[in-house]
Amino acid sequence: MGDPWQECMDFAVVLARKAGTVVCAALKESVTVMVKSSPADLVTATDQKVEELIISSIKEKYPSHSFIGEESVAAGAGSTLTDNPTWIIDPIDGTTNFVHRFPFVAVSIGFAVNKQVEFGVVYSCVEDKMYTGMKGKGSFCNGQKLQVSGQKDITKSMILTELGSNRNPEVIKIVLSNMERLLCIPIHGIRAVGTAAVNMCLVATGGADAYYEMGIHCWDMAASSIIITEAGGVVLDATGGPFDLMSRRVIAASSREIGERIAKEMQIIALERDDTGEEH
Amino acid sequence: MGDPWQECMDFAVVLARKAGTVVCAALKESVTVMVKSSPADLVTATDQKVEELIISSIKEKYPSHSFIGEESVAAGAGSTLTDNPTWIIDPIDGTTNFVHRFPFVAVSIGFAVNKQVEFGVVYSCVEDKMYTGMKGKGSFCNGQKLQVSGQKDITKSMILTELGSNRNPEVIKIVLSNMERLLCIPIHGIRAVGTAAVNMCLVATGGADAYYEMGIHCWDMAASSIIITEAGGVVLDATGGPFDLMSRRVIAASSREIGERIAKEMQIIALERDDTGEEH
Repeated sequence: MGDPWQECMDFAVVLARKAGTVVCAALKESVTVMVKSSPADLVTATDQKVEELIISSIKEKYPSHSFIGEESVAAGAGSTLTDNPTWIIDPIDGTTNFVHRFPFVAVSIGFAVNKQVEFGVVYSCVEDKMYTGMKGKGSFCNGQKLQVSGQKDITKSMILTELGSNRNPEVIKIVLSNMERLLCIPIHGIRAVGTAAVNMCLVATGGADAYYEMGIHCWDMAASSIIITEAGGVVLDATGGPFDLMSRRVIAASSREIGERIAKEMQIIALERDDTGEEH
Repeated sequence: MGDPWQECMDFAVVLARKAGTVVCAALKESVTVMVKSSPADLVTATDQKVEELIISSIKEKYPSHSFIGEESVAAGAGSTLTDNPTWIIDPIDGTTNFVHRFPFVAVSIGFAVNKQVEFGVVYSCVEDKMYTGMKGKGSFCNGQKLQVSGQKDITKSMILTELGSNRNPEVIKIVLSNMERLLCIPIHGIRAVGTAAVNMCLVATGGADAYYEMGIHCWDMAASSIIITEAGGVVLDATGGPFDLMSRRVIAASSREIGERIAKEMQIIALERDDTGEEH
């Protein structure tokens, strides 16, 4: 039986590849960098151009659908998730990597209906890895089925996270203190490749046992959240409670045990939600 | 004019590729893990097998040469660097990545004469990237010439480092405090892919502006130290003084300015030298 959203996902794959080609071509040119919320929160003309390319293509085909895109929101568009079919887009996940030509940059396209993510497409364009996941249909990388490691023992785990772009000294202290608590459990190690979407996809492949971060946005995790759950993983809130796409925090893990163990160590950073803007 | 060590380097490239094939094949099998100096310092039968393969092949061809290999040293062999032509070998740089199938693992083969590194070969086998560098001849990745970013402004830099495998809480505190100082300068970001050799090669490509670490060994940095300097970068001691291969610490940077600026923020971790074993 066909999935009602299969046609949309096929279209998302085509668009992600097209967008990735633009991103990879731009990596060969000189890049002009603009600053957003902090000296480490960067944006380039390519982010804006690629988002415009993706959204205008989808609008033409699906005029009734809604959109939440990183650069549209930065330009003042709303980011409230309704029940309407909604495309949640990050044109370049890993903009700082892009600026430095560090070879992990991804186009991330998630799709939600009734506030539930139905499918996700993450194209890590320098690596040429196309990750896809669809509710009830599994997740794949370049056609190969993905499966999380299934690791349940935190002392044998490798965990992905990021230092983030917030340069508030108090926030940095919490970020580092959370890493310290995990390292001292002990765990095998911590890695950071600089994009939330690729970090989560790496957990989906079984190449790491968990990823957590606070301060990211719905467009960083919408697509990869379904890729990881369809690979047998779990997504939780950083408190250990149910995952909330608009909460700006996530623990994505290969097992509930690992996810909850990480949550136990987390000191929570106060953040403004993506939808209401309220601090929580 | 031919380089006197060109034949040795050509042989190192062949061996690194052969070793990388064994490592990549082993990634498809189940891995038995043993613990070395800490719960996060791991070794597998593949590390030992690959080092044996590399050393026995070189010994046959160059019976008068000397060797410093990670697993031979772990088994009790000495690691004093003499003036004799010496091959400095890490069969799997990124063993924890290897254990987790996190896709950055490298075979690292450095070659020193009169205690100076003459060439280095780093093969990142999952990515199929062959990095080479030879004194006075430049450095290359899959035949393409490498050039560091040349960035001099620390506030526009992206820096690579690692949390390391030491689980002594006091050491972890210093590692994290050094990261905190750099983040607060501020810098663009910190990344960690889990292998010293690949981190340094990424700086050589211009994909990041510096890498620093304390606690690594001569086999982690011998090969990549020449790859980075031949790409126009600098290697310094973590104190900002001259680089010392046996000191177990390094700052590898795209410019002297960035390297010295990082050194200014470093709190030094007491370590036993690779050669004398003395703490410094």
